[in-house]
This record gives sequence, structure tokens and C-alpha cells, in this order.
Amino acid sequence: MEHSLNNPALRRQYDAAGFGGRVGWGSRPALLVIDMAGAWTSPGEQLGSDLSGVMSGIVRLLPIARRQRIPVYFTTMAYGSPEEAGEVVCRKLPHTRQMLRGSERVQLAPELNRQPDEPLIEKPRASAFFATNLLAMLIARGIDTVIVTGCSTSGCIRGTCESAHNYNFRVIVPREAVGDRSISAHEANLFDIDARYADVVPLQQVLDHLNAL
Amino acid sequence: MEHSLNNPALRRQYDAAGFGGRVGWGSRPALLVIDMAGAWTSPGEQLGSDLSGVMSGIVRLLPIARRQRIPVYFTTMAYGSPEEAGEVVCRKLPHTRQMLRGSERVQLAPELNRQPDEPLIEKPRASAFFATNLLAMLIARGIDTVIVTGCSTSGCIRGTCESAHNYNFRVIVPREAVGDRSISAHEANLFDIDARYADVVPLQQVLDHLNAL
Amino acid sequence: MEHSLNNPALRRQYDAAGFGGRVGWGSRPALLVIDMAGAWTSPGEQLGSDLSGVMSGIVRLLPIARRQRIPVYFTTMAYGSPEEAGEVVCRKLPHTRQMLRGSERVQLAPELNRQPDEPLIEKPRASAFFATNLLAMLIARGIDTVIVTGCSTSGCIRGTCESAHNYNFRVIVPREAVGDRSISAHEANLFDIDARYADVVPLQQVLDHLNAL
Amino acid sequence: MEHSLNNPALRRQYDAAGFGGRVGWGSRPALLVIDMAGAWTSPGEQLGSDLSGVMSGIVRLLPIARRQRIPVYFTTMAYGSPEEAGEVVCRKLPHTRQMLRGSERVQLAPELNRQPDEPLIEKPRASAFFATNLLAMLIARGIDTVIVTGCSTSGCIRGTCESAHNYNFRVIVPREAVGDRSISAHEANLFDIDARYADVVPLQQVLDHLNAL
Repeated sequence: MEHSLNNPALRRQYDAAGFGGRVGWGSRPALLVIDMAGAWTSPGEQLGSDLSGVMSGIVRLLPIARRQRIPVYFTTMAYGSPEEAGEVVCRKLPHTRQMLRGSERVQLAPELNRQPDEPLIEKPRASAFFATNLLAMLIARGIDTVIVTGCSTSGCIRGTCESAHNYNFRVIVPREAVGDRSISAHEANLFDIDARYADVVPLQQVLDHLNAL
Repeated sequence: MEHSLNNPALRRQYDAAGFGGRVGWGSRPALLVIDMAGAWTSPGEQLGSDLSGVMSGIVRLLPIARRQRIPVYFTTMAYGSPEEAGEVVCRKLPHTRQMLRGSERVQLAPELNRQPDEPLIEKPRASAFFATNLLAMLIARGIDTVIVTGCSTSGCIRGTCESAHNYNFRVIVPREAVGDRSISAHEANLFDIDARYADVVPLQQVLDHLNAL
Repeated sequence: MEHSLNNPALRRQYDAAGFGGRVGWGSRPALLVIDMAGAWTSPGEQLGSDLSGVMSGIVRLLPIARRQRIPVYFTTMAYGSPEEAGEVVCRKLPHTRQMLRGSERVQLAPELNRQPDEPLIEKPRASAFFATNLLAMLIARGIDTVIVTGCSTSGCIRGTCESAHNYNFRVIVPREAVGDRSISAHEANLFDIDARYADVVPLQQVLDHLNAL
Repeated sequence: MEHSLNNPALRRQYDAAGFGGRVGWGSRPALLVIDMAGAWTSPGEQLGSDLSGVMSGIVRLLPIARRQRIPVYFTTMAYGSPEEAGEVVCRKLPHTRQMLRGSERVQLAPELNRQPDEPLIEKPRASAFFATNLLAMLIARGIDTVIVTGCSTSGCIRGTCESAHNYNFRVIVPREAVGDRSISAHEANLFDIDARYADVVPLQQVLDHLNAL
């Protein structure tokens, strides 16, 4: 059985088990842009793949968020040395050793045009909330809704959605603004994210909602 | 493309991207038994399904762990009221409203035979580490390796494996001792868990390792 | 030099160093009542002392909070066994071994008249935020201001204020509604709390503010 | 009544209440050096004071730790912008606005001679554990004992000791290797730290213990 949002039998099974309710929008959204740095967006990199469609979606969201004064937060992953990641993390995820602070590959893609008041968060793990100050920044702004974009659906996007849900934020994932190097991982995880942690919705719906604020 | 550990092309793609290394065993393991309570183990419950195979695996592990003085921790999910879970969690996961502290469905299955010195942790979310004292208990015992068993593979097992990995524990998942109401969710998430957070291994390998300590 | 709010030279030193600003009130307060259970409120208990003045202050706050629909959260400390606390905690704080879940001493004082929708949080450490779900409950309600009451000023009150401040909540401490078995600990810690984590204000000011909402 | 370790009546009161047990040494210590950067060590800075005695103590500890291969971790505080700290933190602690990443004042004192494999952790709050990856680094190394040095006793030292204790690490504070701009804050907080979170011991005892490993 295909594990995907396109599988109506699967959705019925989850509905019956009490999953997949709609969280909807709150009144104070924030936009998270996860790991849109060269290590992921350059197909020639070990972690990289073609994320041009995801980037297009994010680049449509950003000016609306900025115009509507919705806080924007960017993340990347970087370590001063492998010691900072820890031995177990380096064993399970050998690409970790490459993610050195200050190297070009951990820098945000320039088309994001990050502004000085938009925090860039160096996160050490998949979830943008783990061992970072993101949570306190969101509380400082009275945020109740988190729009999660970027990559990878099966790793940092899912991990970030789970954390945000755990803290009782409404989590919205614009479907075309998240991506993964593996299409099967993308599809399977979008299903789980929608069933358990976030509302996965069309990008246009997010654009319309933010425009109407 | 099938998203599963049985797909060699997928594994090669992940290997090339620097995922799926082996963490192996440390010197001080602990055994986690996640959510083996009536709400999940009784097929007639909303969240329930046939987890008899999973229970068999756990019931083989427990006496060895106890004989070898490996700490054992059990979890369940329970709230004093839906207010404790929070509105967003209750919207996304309507079954949450049923999980009331003191009700029969949140009690551990009796065949686990929990001993008085084996903590029972009431966790409010998927991960056994979120908003619980499990982490401090593991540090108190000098644990470096966490064996994760129980249900559901796509929810609490994955969430717990991710958290344990984040903290640099070696995480071991005995394949036959975790389960899910959805076979497609089980297969897809075992792949992701093995690629990102834990070593998924045959149950027999875990039994042998613990026996040899 | 006396370490207390009554020492104007000390306050000037801290002002000059950039401490002790006023956080003020936000728009959505919550009331926390910390550890007003028999173990602390009964002078005959090992941890106990005369907290009747503190209780009077809290009992004046509660009906106003309830009338104004301000969420109220209670805490106590309790463990299923010392194993749940951990060896180091039990060594440093030998009284921990007495705080058994289900025992009378960990139950809230009846004059608090806790209502069914007011969560009772079993916390394992001084801070009400450590290893509990309090943070997610506050976010679910859009809380931006936390009023901290109860005991002990030098332990659980200070720890809770520090945590709440860390997460960017405005923290308000009504001076007469917190107490400690040691008057010197109370005075010294009220100073530090006011300088670093919370606004320490007269109880009447809190009553007036809540009444005017 | 003086709130200090020199007050025997106070210590007796705390002993009777079940505080102030000795945690002792475990088998795998780490050394934390908290906030020994120009903002604190230069008397001309807003936050600064004469910490030359504290620095002398730390400079005696470091070569022994390095020779004995005890992991060393340094912290400083720095933000990309006040937005990263959050409005409430900036209100309560106006000095926060000065602590800009990349500025000279947030850089470690050169006499610490930090080595490339010794992580430098940018912490956003008093506790070195809040919103940082320190905890996962300690677990990765199997640390069970944390030696806490640096400044300020009443803020970052106490906050770090409380967090480390919460996670069940044995915490050791070498008395001459921690300091504060306020002598009354230093004395009062050393008492509380010793009663609640850590063993406060003479520096010589720590030097001797590490030398004997």
C-alpha cells in the first residue's frame, strides 16, 4: 500500500484512529526557512539535490511575509568541529563532518536575501528547536502559528514540525515549499506530517492567507 | 520506488549522501518499552491494533534485561484533562481526549510485569524525552545506549529514536519488537529511522548481545 | 553589605551594570502556584515552615484569577521511586527520598481548592518547567506573562522565574505571595530574582492589575 | 542573619531540612569555563569587574585538565541582533543589547588559550545548558561530573550548576575559580549552590583530584 497523501484508504484508516485533524491558522504566524544553504541546494554536494522548485515557492512567500511583518527565521547546520556534533551523530550521519562553521556550503542561498533583523539559526540537529533559541524567539513575538518550509521533508522538516506541534504551535506546511532528495521519502513523510504534526496545504493557500492578513 | 529497508537502490542513494552509518553498541544499555498499554495493544481501541508479535519480542527481552541488570523504562500517555495536552494537540490528534490519567486504557499491559524499580513515565507527546524526566534518569545511570521497543513505529518509536540520537545516545531498534497499526507506515519509518537515528537490527542480535554481557 | 532589595547601594550597582529593568505586564497572564503542598506548608515536615502569610496571599489571588479566566497551574514534587529522581539528586537533596507519589505530603493544601480544569503538575526539580509539559500548556493558551507564587523563594520560585524568563515570558512575583524557610535566603534571592529574571512587586499591585482586566 | 557558607547556624538549618548532601566525584569529569570574555573580565566594561583571582584559578586548572584529557568547554554570550535575545530579556537585562556576535567584548580572554578541539559555546542565557548543544556534547563523552568555573556566581554559574544538577551530573565548584561583581551576591549564591546544586570545594582539592587521575 502506498504510504502517501494520495492514498484515500490510508487516510480513512488514520481518520478512524483519531489522527489527521486540522489545526488551522492562528492569529500570529511566523515563517521558518529550513536549511536552504548550499550543502542542500547544490546538486553537486553530498547532501545536495535539485530543490529549485522548493526555492521558487519560498521566494514567493518571503516578500509577502516581509510586507505583512511576519517574522522570518532561517536555519542552517554548522559545527566548529566534529566534537561539537558528538561521536554518535558523526557515526550515524557521516556527512556531519563536512558541515564546518564558516565554510561556504553552510551559508544560505543568496536568493533568500536574508535581512539583518531575520535571525539565522545554526542548528546542530534536524529539528530547528533542538539546542537552539528559536522557541524563546517565537514566544517573544507571541507567535501561535509556524509555517515550515525548506528541506529535507524526511529529516529537518519533519523534525521541526514535530517539535513545533509538541509545543502547541499550529504548524502549516505549504506542500510545494518543502522538498527532499528522495521522492519516496518526501511522499511518505508528508503523509505522516499531515497525520500527526501539521496541516499540509497547497502553497497558494498559504500565499492567499498571508496576503489577506 | 518503495520506501523501505528492502529497497537496495534507496539504501545506496542514502549511503552516498552520508546517511545510515552504524552506531553500534556502547557499554551501558537501557531498555525502553514505549506505549505498550491497552489503548494501543487492544485491537478494539481507537488507537489499537494487533501488536501480539511486538509483545512477544518485548517479553523475550525483558527477562534478559532484568537478569543482566539493564535498566528498564516503560512509558504510557495520559493527561489529567485535555487542557494538559493543549488545544492544538487535541485538534491534530483527536484521540488525545480519550487518554485520561487513571483510565484503564492508559495502563500497561499486565504481561510486561513491571517491577517497582522500573519507572513508568507518563509522556505527553510521541517522544519519550519530551517533557519527561527520562533523560535525567538515563544520565544518572551512565547509560550510553538505548534499546527502543514498542509502538508505534511511525510516531512514538521514531520520535523517541530521534530524541535519543539528538542527545548522542546510541540507539538500537530490534526490528520485531516495534510495530504500527499501518504496515506502510511501519516500513517507511523503519527505513528513515535506520538512515537517520538508530541501528535497526534483528531481535535475535539484541538478545544475543544482552545475553553475552 | 546586605544582599537585599532594601539595599539602595546594591541596586545602584546593578542598575549601572545593566540589570534590573522592568518587564511589565503583557496582555495574557497566567498564575503559577508552586509547591503549596503539605511537605512545605506543614511546619512539622522536614521541608516545612510557617507559610501562612504566603498562603493568605495566594488565596486572595485565586478567586480573582478564576473570575477573570486567567489560567491557573499548580505544582508539587513527587516520584514513583528514588530511581526516578536519580542518584545525584538524592545525594545532594536527601529529602527527595520522602517525596513519594501518592503520599499525603505531596498533596496540595486543600484551601487552594484546585478546580478540575486547573492542571496539577508533578515536577521533578526546582523549576516548574524542567521535565514537565508546563511550557506547552502556556503556549497553547497564548500566555505572555507568568505570575509566580508559592515556595521556596531560594529554590523552586527562583528556578521557575529563571526558566520563564529564559523563554521570554514576562515574570511577575507578588512579594507577599512567595516564601522560604530561611529569611536570609528569601531576602537574598528576591534581590537576584528582581535583578535578573522577574519584576518583584507588592501583592496589592498584582491584585489591582488583575481586577482591572 | 548572614546568608553565607560561613554561617554555621544556617548550615545546620539546611542540613536538618535535608539539603546540602555531598555529591562527590564521578569517574569522568569535564571542565566548564563560563563567560571569561572581555565583557566580564575587563573592569571598564558595563558588566565587568576585577576577576583576576578567578582567572588565576582557571589558568591553574586548564593545563591539568588538558594533560589528563579531561574535556574542556568554554562559553560566551552573543547575539546576531537583539531580536535573537527577545524583547523581555532585553528589558530585564539592558546590557544584552551590547552583546553582539563578532564584537571584541564577547571574545574569550586570550590567556585561556582555547584549543581547537575545545568547543566555544555561544549561550543566550545564564545557564550554559539553555538553548545550547552542551548537554549532547557531555553525553557523547560519557561525562558524569561537571566542574563549573568562571562568572558570575549569582547568574551564569548558579544557573549552570542548577541545570547540570537537574540532569543528574555531579557538579563541583572550585571556590576560588568563580567570581561575581558583587561580593554579597557571591557569598549568598555560593551558599545556595552548595545547599542545592553542587559541592563547593577549595580549588586545591580540585587540582589534587585531577592530578591524581
